[in-house]
Amino acid sequence: MATSLTHVRIVGAGLIGTSIALALRASGITVTLCDSDSRAQALARDLMGDKNGEEFGIEDLCIIATPPNVIGEVIDAEIGRNPRLRVMDISSIKTKPLQDVLSIGFDLALFAPTHPMAGREVSGPQSARGDLFQGRPWILCLDGVDPDLSQMVRDVVDRCGGIPLDRTVDEHDKAVALVSHLPQIIASLLASQLVAGQGSELELAGAGLRDSTRIADSDPALWAHILAGNSAALRPLLISLQNDLSHAIEKLDDPASMADVISNGRKGRAVIPGKHGGKARNYIYLDIVIDDKPGQLAAIIEACAAAQVNIEDLAIEHTPGQQTGLITLAFSPEDSAIVAAHLEKEGWKVHPSR
Amino acid sequence: MATSLTHVRIVGAGLIGTSIALALRASGITVTLCDSDSRAQALARDLMGDKNGEEFGIEDLCIIATPPNVIGEVIDAEIGRNPRLRVMDISSIKTKPLQDVLSIGFDLALFAPTHPMAGREVSGPQSARGDLFQGRPWILCLDGVDPDLSQMVRDVVDRCGGIPLDRTVDEHDKAVALVSHLPQIIASLLASQLVAGQGSELELAGAGLRDSTRIADSDPALWAHILAGNSAALRPLLISLQNDLSHAIEKLDDPASMADVISNGRKGRAVIPGKHGGKARNYIYLDIVIDDKPGQLAAIIEACAAAQVNIEDLAIEHTPGQQTGLITLAFSPEDSAIVAAHLEKEGWKVHPSR
Repeated sequence: MATSLTHVRIVGAGLIGTSIALALRASGITVTLCDSDSRAQALARDLMGDKNGEEFGIEDLCIIATPPNVIGEVIDAEIGRNPRLRVMDISSIKTKPLQDVLSIGFDLALFAPTHPMAGREVSGPQSARGDLFQGRPWILCLDGVDPDLSQMVRDVVDRCGGIPLDRTVDEHDKAVALVSHLPQIIASLLASQLVAGQGSELELAGAGLRDSTRIADSDPALWAHILAGNSAALRPLLISLQNDLSHAIEKLDDPASMADVISNGRKGRAVIPGKHGGKARNYIYLDIVIDDKPGQLAAIIEACAAAQVNIEDLAIEHTPGQQTGLITLAFSPEDSAIVAAHLEKEGWKVHPSR
Repeated sequence: MATSLTHVRIVGAGLIGTSIALALRASGITVTLCDSDSRAQALARDLMGDKNGEEFGIEDLCIIATPPNVIGEVIDAEIGRNPRLRVMDISSIKTKPLQDVLSIGFDLALFAPTHPMAGREVSGPQSARGDLFQGRPWILCLDGVDPDLSQMVRDVVDRCGGIPLDRTVDEHDKAVALVSHLPQIIASLLASQLVAGQGSELELAGAGLRDSTRIADSDPALWAHILAGNSAALRPLLISLQNDLSHAIEKLDDPASMADVISNGRKGRAVIPGKHGGKARNYIYLDIVIDDKPGQLAAIIEACAAAQVNIEDLAIEHTPGQQTGLITLAFSPEDSAIVAAHLEKEGWKVHPSR
């Protein structure tokens, strides 16, 4: 996807801007990285190995990697430097910045809204990584955008290793409200309940509490504008959760209602694609207890091959010092019956999971 | 902590019961593990390397590792086998099972309420691990419990590698409502909102959504009785969160209010002890950009030693293929000024973090 892209200017040396800068620089692009915060700019330029104060003239593409609420004023300032300004936006919301850009009279064909879905709960250039976007979705809202600019934007995503996904602006804002902004606000509200806790209570905190509140470490200055800027898409989701919470409080003494709450949560988890989620599958799982000695896994896989079945998934549970281990194998319903019979005949300890 | 403990009977071959069985067996204790579910019992006994149907006579201690709502009926059944029954309870709630035990007339001095804080979002004997409790808190509510039984209970915790923490029953129930039951119900309510999502929206799910809903994979049958059984301690926490949620919905368009929501969440995260949390510290962090070549870390540590300062914490950020890396060092305020001056004089690229 070679384009005419040779020089990119990035405004905003935060986590995302600096990570894009590192990835583009590594791919051979000339990158100027600047920030209104001189400390962030100096650290980011050190990370890139730039000399202090180095500038590289007029860019082909300007990536604005600031918080979303200042995009309009950044464009106003940049257009003074470069009257042929072409902008790639990477902010976490889309409708609100577009309105701002429209209101300052900038040509929307020269403003490409995109969103790399690769945030971290840490921020600033010190958390930047050139491989931050590798294999992560990067949403492109390129309807009505100038074709040359669109090509440059796709080139940037390609060089960063992102997976381009085309969406409309509305689709984007509705989707991130569900998968990103709703979890953020709920995790923050959950974590804030801990402030009233005693030390002797918090001492008992485990991985469950840590994981469910991890994203509550996020940056208030950035998220304030993301959440407020996407309130139209976020509000109905929060109201739905508020209704479910009220119902749960009302029925808290009733085990059957609580079982429903947990069951509905499991249904929600099951629709998350990828690891521990994914499209509805119809696998049968076989738990096989093995003696903890070398070659057992290979012997089982060989036995499955002999039964001419296809192993769909595999997990190993092993505890150091324990005399047995557990291998869980997933099969199609047809294969599972064949392989279970075969393995049992060979003397393996097979337990169908439920 | 050698006690007269030689034979333990465990009723309930789920995650916790089987994990305790594996740990005790590994420490040399004779263990009988049984379950009303014959499949779970067979799998758990295979994991322990037992012969089918093996039983070992009358135990010194009976650990009841069933869901909390059936503890009363299990005691009723067990006392027929062993009139000198001594029970160690490991359920996630304490007040409700105690009431049940009292109501069947069992001697409370022979019932030791404990709670190993080591659940997983997976369940059943297939998820058991003999090292599940290593280094994890194990709460003991031993007020009024027979001294011999108390000693056996402490022996079990010790053999499992758990960290004993003494609490009253009330303290326990209030603490787990905050650090365990509240996150569970909120994670489940959050995850259940995903059911209404489109595939094209869920495709954008990242680690934030996965982590914040991970515990929503929990077992409904077990959690129904935990949540309903601890409703008195849990309800005020849910109402507090409900109030905060209502306020957030009302102020959703206001960036300053949203910044408060995120800031309050960060304050809550900061009071979680341990990794990424911990007691309020007063460290100054220095970010040091290094060239990505061998020996740089050692050289920095040597420079700190030469400045006679104490490194309180250290983190390394490095991206494969990138020409620079970042080392973040934490110091006391006094040391940081000394070491920053020393490192800068030696030519290191030092950036004080904020």
